[in-house]
Amino acid sequence: MPRRHELFSVDRLKALSDGVFAIVITLLVLNLIPDAARSPQQLLDAWPSYLAYLAAFLSIGSIWLNHNAAFARIREADAPVLTLNLVLLLGSALIPWPTVLIADALQNGNHIDQVAAMIVFSIVSLLLSAPWSALDRYVRRHPALLVNEGDAAWFRWHSRMSDVSFLLAIVTVGVSFLSPLTSLVIYLVSITTFLIVRLFERVR
Amino acid sequence: MPRRHELFSVDRLKALSDGVFAIVITLLVLNLIPDAARSPQQLLDAWPSYLAYLAAFLSIGSIWLNHNAAFARIREADAPVLTLNLVLLLGSALIPWPTVLIADALQNGNHIDQVAAMIVFSIVSLLLSAPWSALDRYVRRHPALLVNEGDAAWFRWHSRMSDVSFLLAIVTVGVSFLSPLTSLVIYLVSITTFLIVRLFERVR
Amino acid sequence: MPRRHELFSVDRLKALSDGVFAIVITLLVLNLIPDAARSPQQLLDAWPSYLAYLAAFLSIGSIWLNHNAAFARIREADAPVLTLNLVLLLGSALIPWPTVLIADALQNGNHIDQVAAMIVFSIVSLLLSAPWSALDRYVRRHPALLVNEGDAAWFRWHSRMSDVSFLLAIVTVGVSFLSPLTSLVIYLVSITTFLIVRLFERVR
Amino acid sequence: MPRRHELFSVDRLKALSDGVFAIVITLLVLNLIPDAARSPQQLLDAWPSYLAYLAAFLSIGSIWLNHNAAFARIREADAPVLTLNLVLLLGSALIPWPTVLIADALQNGNHIDQVAAMIVFSIVSLLLSAPWSALDRYVRRHPALLVNEGDAAWFRWHSRMSDVSFLLAIVTVGVSFLSPLTSLVIYLVSITTFLIVRLFERVR
Repeated sequence: MPRRHELFSVDRLKALSDGVFAIVITLLVLNLIPDAARSPQQLLDAWPSYLAYLAAFLSIGSIWLNHNAAFARIREADAPVLTLNLVLLLGSALIPWPTVLIADALQNGNHIDQVAAMIVFSIVSLLLSAPWSALDRYVRRHPALLVNEGDAAWFRWHSRMSDVSFLLAIVTVGVSFLSPLTSLVIYLVSITTFLIVRLFERVR
Repeated sequence: MPRRHELFSVDRLKALSDGVFAIVITLLVLNLIPDAARSPQQLLDAWPSYLAYLAAFLSIGSIWLNHNAAFARIREADAPVLTLNLVLLLGSALIPWPTVLIADALQNGNHIDQVAAMIVFSIVSLLLSAPWSALDRYVRRHPALLVNEGDAAWFRWHSRMSDVSFLLAIVTVGVSFLSPLTSLVIYLVSITTFLIVRLFERVR
Repeated sequence: MPRRHELFSVDRLKALSDGVFAIVITLLVLNLIPDAARSPQQLLDAWPSYLAYLAAFLSIGSIWLNHNAAFARIREADAPVLTLNLVLLLGSALIPWPTVLIADALQNGNHIDQVAAMIVFSIVSLLLSAPWSALDRYVRRHPALLVNEGDAAWFRWHSRMSDVSFLLAIVTVGVSFLSPLTSLVIYLVSITTFLIVRLFERVR
Repeated sequence: MPRRHELFSVDRLKALSDGVFAIVITLLVLNLIPDAARSPQQLLDAWPSYLAYLAAFLSIGSIWLNHNAAFARIREADAPVLTLNLVLLLGSALIPWPTVLIADALQNGNHIDQVAAMIVFSIVSLLLSAPWSALDRYVRRHPALLVNEGDAAWFRWHSRMSDVSFLLAIVTVGVSFLSPLTSLVIYLVSITTFLIVRLFERVR
């Protein structure tokens, strides 16, 4: 009998991932919380924080929807799947970092600070897209890990989605050299479009 | 065969939601923790923080009781249910924000700051009531998602509850223009009443 | 057929509780983390933080062991069980608050600050012992909720444990008027004894 | 019938542990988040924070992979297993503390501060290796707790791994007296090697 990777239930992979997503969603709020009483004007002036919070929440929301759909099709995980998922969680856990950098740069920073914040954002997006792509391709080549071998087609489709979101990260960085705020708005519109498409998606 | 929404188990939806609720309950405590040693007088002077903490804890507690009762009746989730639940989690995750604003405004702010904090609180309440109402109505019209088709009646009753809590949010904002503290006390009394009613609720 | 409380699976009650316990354990570490580089001397001077961290960790650890043992015996939860568990989580989530107060008071506060911190600690202990006692007594009187009706005896024994830990909280406050540090050490010794007893406990 | 330890399902032990690991991964990011807008130069100057974040993330990642592999082989837990796991979680929850100390010491501290930070790191590593070793040895001597009695061999192998990681902690402290940065790099290389070996590991 050939030696092979040990296979694990995906229950704990899902539990760890849901834990990370839940905490990232909730930690993002800490950045909204001021040190002292705030006047209505001060609350309105903090609008970049609200935009950045919304962008980060939508990112985590769409990662979770993807993760839910992907691992509903995966029956068992081997070491490469567990490890690629950890890298994906590394990227997800980092999301609050560029979120706060962007909000701070829009409120108090100059143009250079804002471009730097958007570059950090794109590096984190890369840290998210790269393990997704690798996971999609690995799972497609190991159909024994799937609930249903026909699901390999879903991972082919999803790997194209991962490539599109990687391109999107590059575009937002390019635009951010001209206007960081426009770049953030492009990202928000793209991710909202993705979520609306997902909302009306149908399967056979 | 007509194309339809893909159906998912509600296990991960519950896991993500329980994660968010657990973290919000626990993060709220960070606002009570001072930077340095506190005298008994300073501890007593921080009473608005304790009141705000209690209000926020009771909110999350009653959201969790509702979420538990609602998803005990839902067998499978499609994309609209997953997405509406994410919006509900957005509202829940935001709760610490108005909580701290209200506590800070009552301790160090003026009347205008307190009214502003209560308005933020009402916007967050709206972000909670709106997806609840939408979820209740969506599930009622898609009885195939339910454990038991008779449970549609429960969601009809619950959508009326969501409307009442939306009205309550509007009333608390109205009262907050006169007296923000009275408004917070009205909210505390209402939510405690809700919890006591729930405690003595009977089913057939 | 008489109307009765609706019964829920205890799965989500356990998930929410494990979430809260996990976060409290981890948040406690935030208090150890300094703002800037620390010399060896500064690290040693922070010993009250380490003692307070250990006391808080042991508290949560023993609450979790009790919660695990109690809910392994409970098959279904009704509204009073869910609500009493929420109050128990309120007490558990508050633990970092007196922990930090005690550490700060021992490092930078005077005798009065230290006594005040120990009184907050005892109020939180009361918020923990009271719902435990109520839960033990409620479950004993509703054996239909138990996995095994013979388990009512366990809850009788456990309600006596809850009463002892309530008395312990009162003793530590009493001693804290004389010496807050002695009081903290008494608490540490008691909870370590409890954990060691639990470690060697046998059942038939 | 002889009296014995009560046996518990490992479900909640896994849930609590996954919660702690998820939070530690995510809390580590808080240390990267600045108070104000950052210039590109300031972002680059914070490189020790990134290295420390990566080291901490890889630590938790490899602890989780080990925990997953170990508890996939354990069927039921008794009080010693639950308690040793709590001590393991204590060590895991502490990881952000030396992580921040090391990052701060490399950025703003002198040589003595850096050595002190590495010593704290080694104490935390000891708090992690010691309960792992004890758990491995306890489970090997109680094969009734295992899913499959043949799994005792895995725990024998794993206890040797725990001893190696304990030795590694001592080596990194030794080297840190000469060069704390070299010591951190040795740790990073070792843990990455471990993860790559795990990635290519095969079983029969």
